[in-house]
Amino acid sequence: MDLEFLKQATKKELPRSRWEHTLRVAETAIGLAKREGVDPCKTEIAAILHDYCKSWSEQDLVHWIKQKHLPQEFLEYNKELWHAPAGAAVACEKFGIRDEMILNAIRYHTTGRPAMSKLEKIIFLADYIEPGRRFPEVGEVRRIAEKHLDLAVLKALDNTIIFLVNRSQKIYPLTLDARNDLLDRVTQKNSREESI
Amino acid sequence: MDLEFLKQATKKELPRSRWEHTLRVAETAIGLAKREGVDPCKTEIAAILHDYCKSWSEQDLVHWIKQKHLPQEFLEYNKELWHAPAGAAVACEKFGIRDEMILNAIRYHTTGRPAMSKLEKIIFLADYIEPGRRFPEVGEVRRIAEKHLDLAVLKALDNTIIFLVNRSQKIYPLTLDARNDLLDRVTQKNSREESI
Repeated sequence: MDLEFLKQATKKELPRSRWEHTLRVAETAIGLAKREGVDPCKTEIAAILHDYCKSWSEQDLVHWIKQKHLPQEFLEYNKELWHAPAGAAVACEKFGIRDEMILNAIRYHTTGRPAMSKLEKIIFLADYIEPGRRFPEVGEVRRIAEKHLDLAVLKALDNTIIFLVNRSQKIYPLTLDARNDLLDRVTQKNSREESI
Repeated sequence: MDLEFLKQATKKELPRSRWEHTLRVAETAIGLAKREGVDPCKTEIAAILHDYCKSWSEQDLVHWIKQKHLPQEFLEYNKELWHAPAGAAVACEKFGIRDEMILNAIRYHTTGRPAMSKLEKIIFLADYIEPGRRFPEVGEVRRIAEKHLDLAVLKALDNTIIFLVNRSQKIYPLTLDARNDLLDRVTQKNSREESI
């Protein structure tokens, strides 16, 4: 897959501000990928495509989710989540991407899931901390992300859950599962390190 | 079932402070039940027995959960949750209670669940707001509970989720499901009222 073609196709699909966000996510994600030993080419493709469907109409997203047999339960939750599974389906069908690592990084970049791969964590986190993000909690997550991928993703998931509770919005169960799973892994890792 | 017998049996099973908490939960729950049109006798039985297993050892709770084929997934979550399903099993086996309304009120009094009955909500809420509770958020929930059962339970679930996130403790998925479900119901009810 020609990266330049993907970039141009995505740029055409997005308003300028969202395209600029996408470029910042890609830059942030590639930096994390190099540090974490993850393929920067796959990382860049996932980052470029992660918000491909972000500006689609609600109607188009519903149509796509139904037609492509994506998890229908998404439709019972915040529509802000819908572009991620739709984006993975577009990446596969429109751009012929078959690499499940890339597709899952797009698919789970808003919800997270248990047992996330490093690439999934990187796209999730880069989307949360890219330098254009301005919300109050982002600074702490950026600082954690300088050293600890898992701890930063966990903090971002925690913040997301609290944000949604405080805004009286539903929380997609997979996000809680992702957070519980990562908390288990971080705690077990700490216990192992303490016992050495 | 003789209520006095249940009281004496439960009193023997609990340290004094926990027994006094139980009596306050019963009094609070009966008050809510009368207002909400729920059977106060069933309410009192559920309240008296809700913490029957609260002082059991971790070992006894694990044994009971395994032997009685209660949901094994509980064991992956905070042990503070275990006494509730164990208590429902004891109420059934030891005291012969077969009323599913009462058993479910005991079973779900710490986690909540989607589509809770009024009695389940009342025991859950009374346990949270009884006058001995002193944590900072309880005052707001007590005020809401004076008028709105669902809104008070929703606020208690929200607070519980935030508390557990901030304490880096796992959240039992059913608690999130309970909160999402109740949020849906409250929102739909408000929408219906607005459209009238």
